[in-house]
Formats: sequence, structure tokens, C-alpha cells
Amino acid sequence: MKKQLTIGLFGFGCVGTGLYEVLNKTTLLQASIKHIVIKDLSKKRIIDANYFSTDADRILDDEEINVVVELINDYEAAYEIVTKALKSGKHVVSANKKLIAYYLDELISLAKENQVSFLYEASVGGSIPIIRNLEEYYNNDSLSNINGIVNGTTNYILTKTGEGESFDEALKNAQDLGFAELDPTSDVDGFDAKYKLVLLLKHAFGFTAKQDAVWNYGIRQLKDWDATYAREKGLKIKLLAFGTRINNQVIGFVAPHLIPANHFAFNVENEFNAVVVEALFSDKQLFLGKGAGSHPTASAVLSDISALQFDYAYEYKKSKTEERLTFENDFSLKVYVSATTQEKLDEVEFADTLETYSGQSHSYKIGLIRYSEIQKMDWNAASEYFLAVVPDSVELDTKSILSASESTELIEELS
Amino acid sequence: MKKQLTIGLFGFGCVGTGLYEVLNKTTLLQASIKHIVIKDLSKKRIIDANYFSTDADRILDDEEINVVVELINDYEAAYEIVTKALKSGKHVVSANKKLIAYYLDELISLAKENQVSFLYEASVGGSIPIIRNLEEYYNNDSLSNINGIVNGTTNYILTKTGEGESFDEALKNAQDLGFAELDPTSDVDGFDAKYKLVLLLKHAFGFTAKQDAVWNYGIRQLKDWDATYAREKGLKIKLLAFGTRINNQVIGFVAPHLIPANHFAFNVENEFNAVVVEALFSDKQLFLGKGAGSHPTASAVLSDISALQFDYAYEYKKSKTEERLTFENDFSLKVYVSATTQEKLDEVEFADTLETYSGQSHSYKIGLIRYSEIQKMDWNAASEYFLAVVPDSVELDTKSILSASESTELIEELS
Repeated sequence: MKKQLTIGLFGFGCVGTGLYEVLNKTTLLQASIKHIVIKDLSKKRIIDANYFSTDADRILDDEEINVVVELINDYEAAYEIVTKALKSGKHVVSANKKLIAYYLDELISLAKENQVSFLYEASVGGSIPIIRNLEEYYNNDSLSNINGIVNGTTNYILTKTGEGESFDEALKNAQDLGFAELDPTSDVDGFDAKYKLVLLLKHAFGFTAKQDAVWNYGIRQLKDWDATYAREKGLKIKLLAFGTRINNQVIGFVAPHLIPANHFAFNVENEFNAVVVEALFSDKQLFLGKGAGSHPTASAVLSDISALQFDYAYEYKKSKTEERLTFENDFSLKVYVSATTQEKLDEVEFADTLETYSGQSHSYKIGLIRYSEIQKMDWNAASEYFLAVVPDSVELDTKSILSASESTELIEELS
Repeated sequence: MKKQLTIGLFGFGCVGTGLYEVLNKTTLLQASIKHIVIKDLSKKRIIDANYFSTDADRILDDEEINVVVELINDYEAAYEIVTKALKSGKHVVSANKKLIAYYLDELISLAKENQVSFLYEASVGGSIPIIRNLEEYYNNDSLSNINGIVNGTTNYILTKTGEGESFDEALKNAQDLGFAELDPTSDVDGFDAKYKLVLLLKHAFGFTAKQDAVWNYGIRQLKDWDATYAREKGLKIKLLAFGTRINNQVIGFVAPHLIPANHFAFNVENEFNAVVVEALFSDKQLFLGKGAGSHPTASAVLSDISALQFDYAYEYKKSKTEERLTFENDFSLKVYVSATTQEKLDEVEFADTLETYSGQSHSYKIGLIRYSEIQKMDWNAASEYFLAVVPDSVELDTKSILSASESTELIEELS
């Protein structure tokens, strides 16, 4: 039975405006926006001023409104709105990955208690229907690996550094084009990608990772020589959110990867996002699409709204199995590390070294580092270094990650 | 409310065996196979002989069996089984694209009349959840274009010809490896891809194309010089199932395409399949995965079975709009045509020629041909020729297709 959907919208920025336009243009869905709550009433809007107020209760106390769409930036304010809405028995559609990564289990419980749906497809991968596919299509399949390019800003910058621009030039251009914020920290230091990874890990493995337990290293420290190294080797540097399951353990982190030409993500450029899912039965799958933008993101919100017509709710089937998964920190990574001087490079403790280069401008090493060793430094702030994970090949993505015993073995074998 | 699913299975080949294994290995779904009907009882099977018989009625007359999974090759025999099963009030899951392309509307009506579901995710793109995504995720978005590599056998052969093997060698190797049948007609002449295209057109545009109205041209006539041409230009030859909507008209055909390195499908090699969907709001998306194989295909069947627990049925929302779409035949294609002699090449009537090459071994032309002109010849049988569509660029895929008025304009402009 289809329900009449009456929407209260929080936020009327890029995605909110897109949603309004998309709802107006589609003839395939009967849903209407009744009221929009914004921060600043003085801004000029494309629609009638009567729609707007700054009073959240105009939506939260309106019994006719059965769907709250939350599209604001401030995740603490969003927390207030979303929890109140769920408690008022309203369905919530959100694109706020930071909110969800911080409060995932609490929000899931709250939705369940109040018998409403809490959907957030637009929070990961923009237009790519990755959460829905993990929920609906891979719910009976056992997943081993999920990784992807989930931040369009850094992928745009990396596309440009791959073409020869410096990081600073590329960031400036991205800011001028509106792809990057004035304070780019959340994007370039990998926080945004990490929030998304937390959601992917939940739907892929049923595991709620504490967002502050997940290592996020971005691309701020990428030097020209790193880009040159990748280009000369026929590789590309991509910022991947990476999650893998080994037995009952989950590994998850965000870091730049040096990927070869046969990697699924090699041709994913500019603002595009892509997620690779590896499953026991269905094998390796790629989902690729626009990771940001007004209409692509709004289309994901629209799709959630549409699903509410049929009382759709996430099942979190992977969370319901009996297995107790733990977050694994005891493994080694195969990495490339460059440093401005050989002395600086020598300060990084490699468990094993496979290649070294020492030059006038910089030096680098390729080898195995224990993850616990990596954790000792704030790499985002370490301007002398750049680090990238080196997967052996696309077929062996997970081979760059070795469990503690495997890495001990390998290290013994190599030395 | 979840239902107990009791399955009657027709066929126990590669996919049927895979389904049995996959059902056994997953702990996430409660469904059991009660009986399996096969053609040949004398073959050795991996499970207890008690499961098997050659008597279709053992399944069709068993009231406890509420799901029929049809995985046989013979599409006429499958028609008998599927129609009887639907009439008996059983849900049907099928991977039989030929059956469905021939009888789509009839089978949809029959399922509706009998209030059961007829699902067929495994029939297109193996493990790729393309039908489900078109149904569930793009149901509110207006699609403009769908195209993809949907035949793994020809993609494997084309990967090898791209690497320097001749078509005959590549076909022979594919046959030795079990990727191609002894009579490869259905794959190499594009019939298999056409059946799948008919299903994609239905779910993307709501339009039922008569399978015999869709042009299918395969890769049987690919010569070494065509592969060399592609390689020298940095292009690849890919067999694409192509569907596009222009206003209320649908264009659909299967033909080899010469695609550039920035095309989404460029790196889709070997037995992989990929489908690109272009939509008004969500923009361009790619779905990539294994298009064939026992477990990948079985995983798609399993996903349909799982959906039946919740009484899932396709909605065919795009078919329910008021628009009357027609199949368009009056347009031009930009193509590359090679021929064994200049005389033979001159027999092909180009509306406009953009490039010509004449040599000792062969000659070729690039230009515009009216689609009605193409239809006059059985290209699959024309051993003197090879034809490939030339998209101008990945961003302009549909630009290689011009409506009648546009092509007249362009031809005037150029001449």
C-alpha cells in the first residue's frame, strides 16, 4: 500500500535545492514538501518565502509531516533534529555521514523503538546505490572486502596531480570551482571518507566501527615526486576507503593507494566515486557514479523517499548473525613512504624493506610496516612524509594486508 | 512476514549446481530444494539420487513447493514449465533470457493474474544486480540511455583479439575453456546479448521490444586488420547492447563498438560484464561484475529467492506511465566498415563519408549510414565485411546516433 508522503525539509543548500527541483520534475512519485527550515531567512531562494522558517518545531510538531529530510552541515544540530524526528514517529532521510558515523547504533535503535525508517543512501557515494545494494542484494552473500573512492573532492585533486599539477594548485582550483571547501580538512585528511567507511562496514559486515578507531590518512602531504613516481610506474594514487574481513576480524582504514592499470578504480577520475564489493558467491562487483553534485545526491534522497512509500527500512541482516566481529589492529601493510630527507625516512620503522631510493630532493622506501607502528604518528600533519598503500595487484587487493602471523612468516621468509 | 520457501528446481547444470552449493553455504536464508527435474537421469550428480526425476509434474503438482527455479537451456520447454508453474500459483525465478525475450508480456500478465512473482535477475549480467536497480532505484528517475557488455563469451574473445589473437584462435580457446559453446552462434552473432537488451529496455524505458525487431550484429566477421586498427588508434572493440530514448522513441540494437580509453567499458575485460545507465538526475552510473559462472549467476538466483520471502515482485513502473513509446528505425549511425576489397566497400551505401582507406589487404570507411540501409544486409553472414559503431566520445555516446532530422542536417552541413 502506497503512503502519501508529506516532507519537512531541513536545509536548502545544494542538495536541498536539487531535491526540490528533482521532486518537481519527476512524475513518478507523489510526495510534497510542506515546510523548509533554514538558518538564514535573508538569503534569496528560488521558491516562495512562505515555505521557509527558522523554527524546527514547525516541522517536528506538524503531525501531517511524516517524513523529515535532513540536509544540513552541522552534525550536532542534525543530531537534535533527527533524534527528535524519530521520537515523534517520523521517518528520517539523511545525507549526513558525520552524524551517522558518530551516532549510528543509537539512531538505529531509536528508529526501531519508534517503528519508523531511518534511511541514508545519499550519505555514501552520492548517486551510487551502494547501501541499498548491500542491504538488498548482498544480504545472503558473505562479503570479504569492500573498498572504494568515496570522496569526490580528493579524487578530483588526485586526477589533477596525476596530470602534473601540484597538490596546492589542484586544491586551489578545486576550491575555485566549488568542489572543495575553504577549510578542506574534512576532505583532504580523509575524515569524510572515514565517516562513509563506517557506514559501509556496518552494512557489509554488520560491524559498527567507532569512528575514532578508524585510521584516516588523506592526501594533504602528497608531493610532486610522489605523483611523478606513480606516473613513471604506470600507477595512479587514489584515496581508498578500505574494509576487509578476515575470519571474525574486520580491518578498516582510509589511506592513499598506489593502484595499477588493471585495478577497477584506475579509470575513476574527477568527481566520480566507485565502490568495489567482493563477495563469496557473486565475486567482485564495481559500482561507479557521480559521488557528489546537486542532482545526483538529490536522486539518492529521492530514492529513499520513494522507498518510504512501501515502508522500506534497512534490515541490518549482517548485524543479526551470531558472530562477534572485532576490529583488528595487528597486521602489516605494504606501503610506499617518501620523505624529504634520508634521515627522516630512517625514522620510520619498517618491519621489512623491499625497495629503497635515495636522492637529492627526496628518498623513498617500499616495504612492510606494522599497523601499530603507523598509528604512532599523525601522518596528516607530518609534512616531511607521504605514505601510500601498495596493493600487489587488483586480484590480490587483500594481499597487501597480512595478518600478524602471516606477516611474521613473510618477514622471516624475506629476511 | 517471511515465508518458508520450498523450491522445485528445473535443470542441474552449471548454475543449478551452483545454486545448490550456494544455498548450502549461506546461513542467511531459510530455503530448501525439495525436488530437481532433469533430462538425463543417468548422469552422475553431486547429491543424492532421490532428489531427481525426469517428471515435471513432481514439481508442478506438489502443493508444498511454492517456488519454481527454472534453469534449463531449451526455451520452448522452459515456456511450458514456467507458464504451468505461474498458473499453479507458484513463484518463478528464471535465468532464461531467450524465453523471457520471446514471451515477456505474456509471462508478466500470467504472473499478475495468478498473483505470483516472476523474477529473472540472473538472466542479464550474471551477478550484476541491474534489473533490481532499474526497478528499485531508478524507478523515479528518467533514464535516457542504457548500454553494456552483457555477453561474457564475446567479451572474452574480444579481449584476446585485442591482444593479437585471431578471431578463430580466440573462439577455439574459448571453446576449449568452456566459455563458448560448440555452436557459438547465439553468442558470437549477438542473439544472447539481444535477448538481454530486450529485458533491459523493458525495465529502463517500460517498452517491450519485439526480439525480432532488434538488430543484432556480432563479432564473427572481425578480421585481424580490424583488431589492428583499434589497437593502433588506442581504441577497443566491445560488443555493446545499446538502448537509448529520444523523446518518445526508443532505439535499441546490438553491435560492436569502437570505444576510446575514457569509455566506462574500456577496462571491462574477459568474462566481465558491465552496464552503464544514464539518468536525468543520477547521471551516469556503471555496474560491473562477473557476467557468467556457476556461483556468480547462482548468487543472482539466490537474491531473487531471498526477495520472495517478502513477496517481492517487479513493479514495471516505467510501463505504467501514459507515454506511448515507439521503436525508432529512422536514424543514422556513425560507423567503421572494413571490406576485403574496395569494390565490396563501395557497395555499402554511406549517407556521408568522413574517412577512407584503401590498401592491399583490405579497405575501410568511416562515415554515416542510415539504419534502414544497414538493415538491408545480413551482416552476421557477410564475410567480406566488418562493421563497428564509432561513438564520438564517452561523453557523447548517443551522438553517434542521430535522429532523421539531425542526420539530414549534419549531412547537409558536411557536404
